[in-house]
Amino acid sequence: MRPAEDRFHEECGVCAVVGHPDAANLVYLGLYALQHRGQESAGIATWDGHRVHSHRAMGYVADIFDRKTLDRLPGEVAIGHVRYSTAGDSALTNAQPLVVNTQHGPLAVAHNGNLVNALSLRHALEGEGAIFQSTSDTEVILHLAARFRADSVEEALLAALAAVKGAYSLVVLARERVLAARDPLGFRPLLLGRLGEAWVVASESCAFDLLGAELVREVAPGEVLRLDRAGVRQIRPAASPPYAHCVFEHVYFARPDSRVFGEDVGIVRQRLGERLALEQPADADVVVGVPDSGIPAALGYSRFSGLPFVLGLVRNHYVGRTFIEPKQSIRHFGVKVKLNPVRALVSGKRVVLVDDSIVRGTTSRKIVTMLKQAGAREVHLRISSPPTIGPCFYGIDTPERRELIASSATVEVIRQFVGADSLGYLSEAGMLACLETPAENFCTACFSGRYPLLETESETLAKTQR
Amino acid sequence: MRPAEDRFHEECGVCAVVGHPDAANLVYLGLYALQHRGQESAGIATWDGHRVHSHRAMGYVADIFDRKTLDRLPGEVAIGHVRYSTAGDSALTNAQPLVVNTQHGPLAVAHNGNLVNALSLRHALEGEGAIFQSTSDTEVILHLAARFRADSVEEALLAALAAVKGAYSLVVLARERVLAARDPLGFRPLLLGRLGEAWVVASESCAFDLLGAELVREVAPGEVLRLDRAGVRQIRPAASPPYAHCVFEHVYFARPDSRVFGEDVGIVRQRLGERLALEQPADADVVVGVPDSGIPAALGYSRFSGLPFVLGLVRNHYVGRTFIEPKQSIRHFGVKVKLNPVRALVSGKRVVLVDDSIVRGTTSRKIVTMLKQAGAREVHLRISSPPTIGPCFYGIDTPERRELIASSATVEVIRQFVGADSLGYLSEAGMLACLETPAENFCTACFSGRYPLLETESETLAKTQR
Amino acid sequence: MRPAEDRFHEECGVCAVVGHPDAANLVYLGLYALQHRGQESAGIATWDGHRVHSHRAMGYVADIFDRKTLDRLPGEVAIGHVRYSTAGDSALTNAQPLVVNTQHGPLAVAHNGNLVNALSLRHALEGEGAIFQSTSDTEVILHLAARFRADSVEEALLAALAAVKGAYSLVVLARERVLAARDPLGFRPLLLGRLGEAWVVASESCAFDLLGAELVREVAPGEVLRLDRAGVRQIRPAASPPYAHCVFEHVYFARPDSRVFGEDVGIVRQRLGERLALEQPADADVVVGVPDSGIPAALGYSRFSGLPFVLGLVRNHYVGRTFIEPKQSIRHFGVKVKLNPVRALVSGKRVVLVDDSIVRGTTSRKIVTMLKQAGAREVHLRISSPPTIGPCFYGIDTPERRELIASSATVEVIRQFVGADSLGYLSEAGMLACLETPAENFCTACFSGRYPLLETESETLAKTQR
Amino acid sequence: MRPAEDRFHEECGVCAVVGHPDAANLVYLGLYALQHRGQESAGIATWDGHRVHSHRAMGYVADIFDRKTLDRLPGEVAIGHVRYSTAGDSALTNAQPLVVNTQHGPLAVAHNGNLVNALSLRHALEGEGAIFQSTSDTEVILHLAARFRADSVEEALLAALAAVKGAYSLVVLARERVLAARDPLGFRPLLLGRLGEAWVVASESCAFDLLGAELVREVAPGEVLRLDRAGVRQIRPAASPPYAHCVFEHVYFARPDSRVFGEDVGIVRQRLGERLALEQPADADVVVGVPDSGIPAALGYSRFSGLPFVLGLVRNHYVGRTFIEPKQSIRHFGVKVKLNPVRALVSGKRVVLVDDSIVRGTTSRKIVTMLKQAGAREVHLRISSPPTIGPCFYGIDTPERRELIASSATVEVIRQFVGADSLGYLSEAGMLACLETPAENFCTACFSGRYPLLETESETLAKTQR
Repeated sequence: MRPAEDRFHEECGVCAVVGHPDAANLVYLGLYALQHRGQESAGIATWDGHRVHSHRAMGYVADIFDRKTLDRLPGEVAIGHVRYSTAGDSALTNAQPLVVNTQHGPLAVAHNGNLVNALSLRHALEGEGAIFQSTSDTEVILHLAARFRADSVEEALLAALAAVKGAYSLVVLARERVLAARDPLGFRPLLLGRLGEAWVVASESCAFDLLGAELVREVAPGEVLRLDRAGVRQIRPAASPPYAHCVFEHVYFARPDSRVFGEDVGIVRQRLGERLALEQPADADVVVGVPDSGIPAALGYSRFSGLPFVLGLVRNHYVGRTFIEPKQSIRHFGVKVKLNPVRALVSGKRVVLVDDSIVRGTTSRKIVTMLKQAGAREVHLRISSPPTIGPCFYGIDTPERRELIASSATVEVIRQFVGADSLGYLSEAGMLACLETPAENFCTACFSGRYPLLETESETLAKTQR
Repeated sequence: MRPAEDRFHEECGVCAVVGHPDAANLVYLGLYALQHRGQESAGIATWDGHRVHSHRAMGYVADIFDRKTLDRLPGEVAIGHVRYSTAGDSALTNAQPLVVNTQHGPLAVAHNGNLVNALSLRHALEGEGAIFQSTSDTEVILHLAARFRADSVEEALLAALAAVKGAYSLVVLARERVLAARDPLGFRPLLLGRLGEAWVVASESCAFDLLGAELVREVAPGEVLRLDRAGVRQIRPAASPPYAHCVFEHVYFARPDSRVFGEDVGIVRQRLGERLALEQPADADVVVGVPDSGIPAALGYSRFSGLPFVLGLVRNHYVGRTFIEPKQSIRHFGVKVKLNPVRALVSGKRVVLVDDSIVRGTTSRKIVTMLKQAGAREVHLRISSPPTIGPCFYGIDTPERRELIASSATVEVIRQFVGADSLGYLSEAGMLACLETPAENFCTACFSGRYPLLETESETLAKTQR
Repeated sequence: MRPAEDRFHEECGVCAVVGHPDAANLVYLGLYALQHRGQESAGIATWDGHRVHSHRAMGYVADIFDRKTLDRLPGEVAIGHVRYSTAGDSALTNAQPLVVNTQHGPLAVAHNGNLVNALSLRHALEGEGAIFQSTSDTEVILHLAARFRADSVEEALLAALAAVKGAYSLVVLARERVLAARDPLGFRPLLLGRLGEAWVVASESCAFDLLGAELVREVAPGEVLRLDRAGVRQIRPAASPPYAHCVFEHVYFARPDSRVFGEDVGIVRQRLGERLALEQPADADVVVGVPDSGIPAALGYSRFSGLPFVLGLVRNHYVGRTFIEPKQSIRHFGVKVKLNPVRALVSGKRVVLVDDSIVRGTTSRKIVTMLKQAGAREVHLRISSPPTIGPCFYGIDTPERRELIASSATVEVIRQFVGADSLGYLSEAGMLACLETPAENFCTACFSGRYPLLETESETLAKTQR
Repeated sequence: MRPAEDRFHEECGVCAVVGHPDAANLVYLGLYALQHRGQESAGIATWDGHRVHSHRAMGYVADIFDRKTLDRLPGEVAIGHVRYSTAGDSALTNAQPLVVNTQHGPLAVAHNGNLVNALSLRHALEGEGAIFQSTSDTEVILHLAARFRADSVEEALLAALAAVKGAYSLVVLARERVLAARDPLGFRPLLLGRLGEAWVVASESCAFDLLGAELVREVAPGEVLRLDRAGVRQIRPAASPPYAHCVFEHVYFARPDSRVFGEDVGIVRQRLGERLALEQPADADVVVGVPDSGIPAALGYSRFSGLPFVLGLVRNHYVGRTFIEPKQSIRHFGVKVKLNPVRALVSGKRVVLVDDSIVRGTTSRKIVTMLKQAGAREVHLRISSPPTIGPCFYGIDTPERRELIASSATVEVIRQFVGADSLGYLSEAGMLACLETPAENFCTACFSGRYPLLETESETLAKTQR
């Protein structure tokens, strides 16, 4: 049995360091800070002036790398990757960075995102004799770059990127340099930082904090940068707005201490909670957040509503991989392994329960029931984002549409399913109003069903079934 | 490098199940819930009607036990133990339950606590020919019981307990029954629960929650219970007050969703924060708690003071065993691996930083500096307990006296050391006022220096040097 | 499935080094050379001038110890142990060296052998209040020594040894010295060696070879030696003959490059084969030995008979722990994983197949069938020892009597069972004639049923059922 | 420290099963039997009617696969590979079978051999846009096949093979069929077997023995077979002689119970020893073989010369990965860990020491010295093959030319280096005379320097430096 994880999952995080004698070690720390973006595999590739070194494996960053492994990754240039992947025997094959040899020399790539035309490009490439060793989109980009008879890696990569559609925030190690690229709609975040003389690139600013690096700026949507000892050079200019920043990064994915898309995640989440209290008030005694992701919004809800915030749910810090459930099964065992209500704080109380989203509804139901069993008189569930009605095709692991409870059920039906006394979602407009960036620059596809960039229906379907 | 852990450590947690076909599996879950009381080794012993089965190993509960291991622990009676132990080659030898054969048959013991006359008993026993295979106090109890030519295990155990002085909350597996015993001063908690027809004993009530068991009552100080298929029988009566309940269980050790010594820990901690705000107000903008132990008191501080609570420090959830620090060391690296400030929430603010205790002061100093680097204008450190001036001899792993900063430094000197703009501790009287149990029933030795039960100075010294 | 192991098993090997700065490392090598005497657990204990350090674990010597583990075993005095143990959850508890604290200080013991009065001593000790943490005889010896109120460890150990009956070749680490003791009948071997200024003790001389040490002499039956920086001192004199040396050490247990009981094992085995050819000739074309233990006798058989020796059976060198047998089972799979016939050498041939012993007969049957399937025209099985009719109570792991095919079946019945065209065993007299040591100094209990030292029938029975 | 391995290494072994419900399990057993051909990584790929499953890892076959891993490899068609690879971070990347997707569908390949034009093909392919994820020649073959716009996989593979030069014995999994191909010179062995209704392909016949399969015939040099449910079909005919069978397979690589190139290895090795005795007699007392590879030739030497064969060197069966050498190093430690002389059998004797080859001479020197220290009066070293003067470019891992002692030193110089009293090699003509296959069908490049097929000197040099 695996601890219930009824949430969307970020699929990847990337990091790169250029011009530091301890590059691999710094990327390791960067990946450690980005661990929440992918917990199933991790890898690092470096360039030591002569050749590429790499190590990747299944598991957590802190388990995969030790002093010995890092010492085998010499060089002043390094890139790294963390990945959330579905189970399967080919899992390690899909781990990144992907390292290959091409006519442009050795290349290593770490990619966060998802291409929407990967399947057709793949078929076309196979028709031309390409062999694919993984099922990742990233290999498509490499094939395209390798095929282009360019004078430089830069030129070849730009040509490859011109052919792909979709979400990509990627770092490419090409001998002594790193190329950092972001798709023109800027779906996923990518930031540039500085650590003394060295340059750092990462998916979120929390990676810079652990390294002691300073945030310089975002890599702009559409922009491609070349980083080497000589500094940072733009080799493709930024694209013009409107963009399609993933609003779910602010709702749930990014760490609250990160800054992405030009705003502080922790602040945004608190504002979402305040707005939620405005839109969906509740006649209640206390506010409880679902740890950890629901806590900032719960604090915002408490502040705006004036209802006291209490730690009514405690998270178990030692959650491991698997739990051995007794033969006589225990009620709500799955969620209890992770969360426990504090009876003394909720018993006899009318509770506002704040969470960031509802996916299948099964976890929410368990938490609501658990609170009631702990004596809560009423449970008013409040969600700091709109109903999630559709899957993501831009780099987030989501269940199929039919598994999303809000894709087919009304709010009232969902309320009955989860067993809450009332249920209120934040409106899409309300959510976007909490952000300083103009609303048209966000992708809200999973909430609104308005999908940017989607290709033929058949390709979409194929992706959905993956 | 290990993530800085500048705190006192609970040394053990115990759990027992009697009369359930899945006893080992339930104890495993109980230990999982008690993991915070000991993270270095764990073990389970069972009685299957014919013989004792046991498994113990170094590591986390979830890593030590799997379906196969649990299937090798058959029987309806089981006890278990989690342990925090100092490093050393003999670590596994000291892991519990300790399983032995005696004239009274096979015995397995799991013990939370520390005896103050263990050393002299040990010397006496050795003088009579006993051999010791571990350095744990628990073995002393077993030797004493094994030596007593009694008609029953119960009689032998009572005789052994009559000879020892100190803190013990222990469970003994003796064929088809479990004996649960608590010392007359009730230093450490021990509770009795019920799961259908089965009985459960555990160090904290949070273990009952995960098992779906109900809390029946505390095992009273001095009480010894016999649990078997026939039910629960008292074989030694409760002792009279005053007791010496460890107040630090409420301050820090126990889980906030637990009930110990008759009170809800989460509620007590919030009250400690409120009282702290009363005694030690601060002219500030926001309240920040040190995750996770400082959060409940910080919420109480916020509530009483009216200052808003913000999540100004984010905890990294993937903290593993070791981290590979870069050769060019990073400032405050040790604490950054665990905590990161949310710049947007603290920058330009006057921050009240709430923590539960200060041990050496080194971690507090790092956190204060980190907040200031993140832009905090002022940092006012508030501690929800009095200064810790002495080590514990009753089952808590504490540094030696000279390492405790408050044993020699004034509050002002500590303030300068940690770099805070002001520093305030809760008073001993204030702390005790937050508890409904009368003050005389608590041991406050680490705060007050008033040690119950202490033997000769030489024995104390020996213990201190361990 | 485990590779068929239808043989008697030596239960243990011991090694000690005194007066060498690298003592643990040397003992590690000694254990490595003695690995054939016990493959299920291993351990080392050292004395660094202040305290005892120890490490023991399940598995092979080379897997258990690495540079880090050995570096944690400092000191100039070390003892070690390899053990063959029956499976069970308490396996690690029984691993040696056993390390305890007593009134005589810390003691570590490594023991090869088996006591015949262990059970009654154990009951008596338990009656006096002793607690037993293992099921090994060794713990009995420690209890006895610890109880004796002696002026010295030496005196205490001698008193303990005076109380025990049975087989013991043991090394005791007692602070700066090692005591090496052998029972008066000298069942199991124990030898003294010298490496520069240091002293070495080991179960077989092959351990000295790997260390570069010289064989000095046997520790005599009954003798107890004290080894320390000052040299070697006898603290109990040798016993007078007749002895009860285990003749099976020469037949199978000891390594062919070892010297035990004053004779070279490799030479003895070749002689056994020559004598076998004299007593049990065969009208055949080639001689094949069962690898590896049957090879020396097969060479002797070939030499005496004049029939050519061929490598008709090849041993697989990569035999690991377990093999995954296909669902459609393969004929003789179990033995094929270990051995494969060389068709070209046996096809159409009348083969003399030489092995050292037959236990249950199942393996012999598989090998005979395998050879016939490979085309052998006739297979004449010749065994270089007499029929094994009884279990061992002196330190060898043997099946129960009823599992020994020769305990109930005639040679002709066994021949039919194994499917050989003829079957011949070496006679007991013939076996003993191959040894220079007088016959009366050997224990032949498993062949003859004449058991030295056996206690009451009840104790024997209890042992048999274990 | 690693046990000295001063020998040539076979680089790979392959196995395939078609038409058996337990295909992966059978290939696992086949690989187990072929473990001596590659001990650093292993892998299996299967086709279950819908998709390819695969698992590969570093380590021994028995460690890599267990019941769970095999159960994840369903299907009636399977191929497998064992590999000896040089250390390096890319080791796992180079493990086989290599599994890819192409326009011809999924392909998995396991390859034994080495291409001599791999480098130029690789450069050409990279120039056309190919990306290489490994450094193995096998990927070149896959790229060539994937690029060919053929109507069938068979056609594409034949086109690819038409472009490559060198040694290849390979099996390709292409959906429901396996293609088995061997280069026209037949450098490395490849055999066809039958197990009931199923077909088996393997590098050596010993794999068939463990599976209970029958040897049908060799896959002929140049031949390509297609195996599926319908049976075996030839899709490329056999090439005409002369061939270039690797004579070293008979001298050392293949298992003595295998049949390769139409002859029984065990018989050939014995004949080499007989011929060696004829060409290089010695005035001596006993013949000793270096275990295990020198034993068959030593037996032949003994038989022809009439000198008795004795087991003068004993091999340690528990040789693991690494050994912890004491700080004060032990003389000849490296070889002693593996071999120990039986003093009683060699002391005072004039010994003929028989080995199959001398590579650097360092191991031979240690063995000779060890025998002399054990008392051998004279040591006459006899080698059952000619001096090895050159590296191999056809699938054997050999040191560079300058490391081969015989590439620069005379026999007399080598004799002095190894410290033998005399040294004699078998002549090339003598070696070839022991084989029934005509001499012109063997590659003797490492002995004679006559390299078949060698490309430009630059490519050769590049290979040599690898």
